[in-house]
Amino acid sequence: MTTNEKALQLHRELNGKLETVSKIPVSSREALSLAYTPGVAEPCKVIARDKEAAWQYTIKANTIAVVSDGSAVLGLGNIGPYAAMPVMEGKAVLFKEFGNVNAVPICLDTQDTEEIIRTIVNIAPAFGGINLEDISAPRCFEIEERLKELLDIPVFHDDQHGTAIVVLAGIINALKVVNKKKEQCKVVINGAGSAGIAITNLLLTYGFSNIILCDRYGILSADSKEINDMQKKMLERTNPHKLKGTLADAMEQADILIGVSAPGIVTQEMAASMNPDAILFAMANPVPEIMPDLARAAGVRIVGTGRSDFPNQVNNVVAFPGIFRGALEGRAKQITEKMKLAAAHAIAGLVPPEELSDTNILPEAFLPQVAEVVAQAVKSNI
Amino acid sequence: MTTNEKALQLHRELNGKLETVSKIPVSSREALSLAYTPGVAEPCKVIARDKEAAWQYTIKANTIAVVSDGSAVLGLGNIGPYAAMPVMEGKAVLFKEFGNVNAVPICLDTQDTEEIIRTIVNIAPAFGGINLEDISAPRCFEIEERLKELLDIPVFHDDQHGTAIVVLAGIINALKVVNKKKEQCKVVINGAGSAGIAITNLLLTYGFSNIILCDRYGILSADSKEINDMQKKMLERTNPHKLKGTLADAMEQADILIGVSAPGIVTQEMAASMNPDAILFAMANPVPEIMPDLARAAGVRIVGTGRSDFPNQVNNVVAFPGIFRGALEGRAKQITEKMKLAAAHAIAGLVPPEELSDTNILPEAFLPQVAEVVAQAVKSNI
Repeated sequence: MTTNEKALQLHRELNGKLETVSKIPVSSREALSLAYTPGVAEPCKVIARDKEAAWQYTIKANTIAVVSDGSAVLGLGNIGPYAAMPVMEGKAVLFKEFGNVNAVPICLDTQDTEEIIRTIVNIAPAFGGINLEDISAPRCFEIEERLKELLDIPVFHDDQHGTAIVVLAGIINALKVVNKKKEQCKVVINGAGSAGIAITNLLLTYGFSNIILCDRYGILSADSKEINDMQKKMLERTNPHKLKGTLADAMEQADILIGVSAPGIVTQEMAASMNPDAILFAMANPVPEIMPDLARAAGVRIVGTGRSDFPNQVNNVVAFPGIFRGALEGRAKQITEKMKLAAAHAIAGLVPPEELSDTNILPEAFLPQVAEVVAQAVKSNI
Repeated sequence: MTTNEKALQLHRELNGKLETVSKIPVSSREALSLAYTPGVAEPCKVIARDKEAAWQYTIKANTIAVVSDGSAVLGLGNIGPYAAMPVMEGKAVLFKEFGNVNAVPICLDTQDTEEIIRTIVNIAPAFGGINLEDISAPRCFEIEERLKELLDIPVFHDDQHGTAIVVLAGIINALKVVNKKKEQCKVVINGAGSAGIAITNLLLTYGFSNIILCDRYGILSADSKEINDMQKKMLERTNPHKLKGTLADAMEQADILIGVSAPGIVTQEMAASMNPDAILFAMANPVPEIMPDLARAAGVRIVGTGRSDFPNQVNNVVAFPGIFRGALEGRAKQITEKMKLAAAHAIAGLVPPEELSDTNILPEAFLPQVAEVVAQAVKSNI
């Protein structure tokens, strides 16, 4: 059987990948009277007096919601809330298995921005955090921003910030390997959707100053077609030399290319036009912007992809479980830029300096200490 | 330590009574590629083509939401969504432990009827059923009715229907013990809130014809103070002899009294005015409308309460886990009157005829086969 056939069979047999489990057996009258009536009234009364006690007495302490509207699921697009469920369940599985965070998949039967915001606000009391997932741009920006204002628990769109954190971690290590300084680097980011914009923002925060953002029509500029508000805002902080032209134009003498776009759109010629010791992350999935062997043959030194069958996998799973683990432990009210930078440094630090190489810039997803190290970094930067 | 102190300590130490657990370990790349990307895309595609496949490939198959707005929690009243969480978690624990139904507690940060309805509709795709809990009357009636119209999964307000089903089960057996027929009985129901009205409706469906509904001001009539729409509707189907007066007036020569009202409001004199072989369920919690020893001393033959330390406990836990277990197995779209009657008969049938007595009309909550027997009855009446 192929992986796809096996995956289908597994899902068919499991009837869902998650279950809810009681931490206490209620096999006696006494247990029942403690977990439920009449004893349960006591923690209720404590929380009624002080809402903050919910962090102690309820699942809020260690439970998040994984929320999607099914509008931008994997490479499948707008498949709706029912079809998005297997992905959200899978994400919840990863939160638990890697970060020991309880996670409830919630798929919303609406794609209206206001409805999504209201619904999430309404269900928030049970949760210690909200992980937004696979919501299409530009709605995802407004939804996240508004929820951050309305809620006192962390709201984190993993497609944006999880990706950005792992990319930054990879770049931090790649620059060590090629011995370049961030201040000297010309960075091109191809893809001006949620991931591309979040990566741009985090790299700017980290200290890169020459970033050129491209969309399907080429270098983003005030004249670009179909430009949205968030992209307009990015123009003020990117492309300092006011370049115009295609992706190929942008990539000439670039030090770093980050692709969060579409399969096969970077040619060997474009890769060859980059500066020596170039770094190229081709993260379109499952087929990258350029295959690693072609990029290397064209002279690129460090190549990363989203795939596990090539070196340097840029995989969000090294970030999100630890980030929420740390945020919940510290009862963070937001995931700030400072926390994201700390997470990126912690992930980068998981590859020992003596092991850094062209093909080893990011830690293995299965390294047991990843989530704990990320969690501690996040927690101590709340 | 008292039960209350122990309950508080237990809740403080547990940080929530539930956890989400993965049904599959993801400790290898292969497992990850089946449970998450890239394999997960396969069940997504199947569901995108046919929404019904969600019942096979996702947690919808065996997961419900336990939803409250915290407006009428236990005897504590309107304590809000945060303080309601320990109760909803406890309910979720009971669903799993007794019925093997996965349940997610959702407490809503709104008490607006329209907002509650929209929020539940929006989160419904992940769930195979909605158990409404501790929502105050009369809003609970409209919320349940509207959700039934809007959703294609069962919506069940346990405070109403769970209670009604267990009361009916008890009455079915009590009538066998005292050898009376439902057609001959005068029934008084004291308490015209959500539970009282649901009990009245189910007893009417079962075939009682002479039911008198009382509220705090006495026998419900068109002249009653503060009468709501649902109560007005009940007037058409109850009180056939157009009685007026107090609860004491109603109880004269009654065969059955069901109290879902307030502690200590039934006197021994009122109990003594009932017909011979009277049945009295005093379900105010924790202090009943009349203590069982006083009722028995006044001549009542069969007394039930909500408490576990007296005989004949009327406990919803014999109903709701099996009802949802059966509804999920049969992929029911609603919990119908027929299914409720079947559940009541199944519960009544769990006490063998030779064991029926004045003090043994309902099965023990901990009897292992309860949920399974109820589930089969519900499933075969979908």
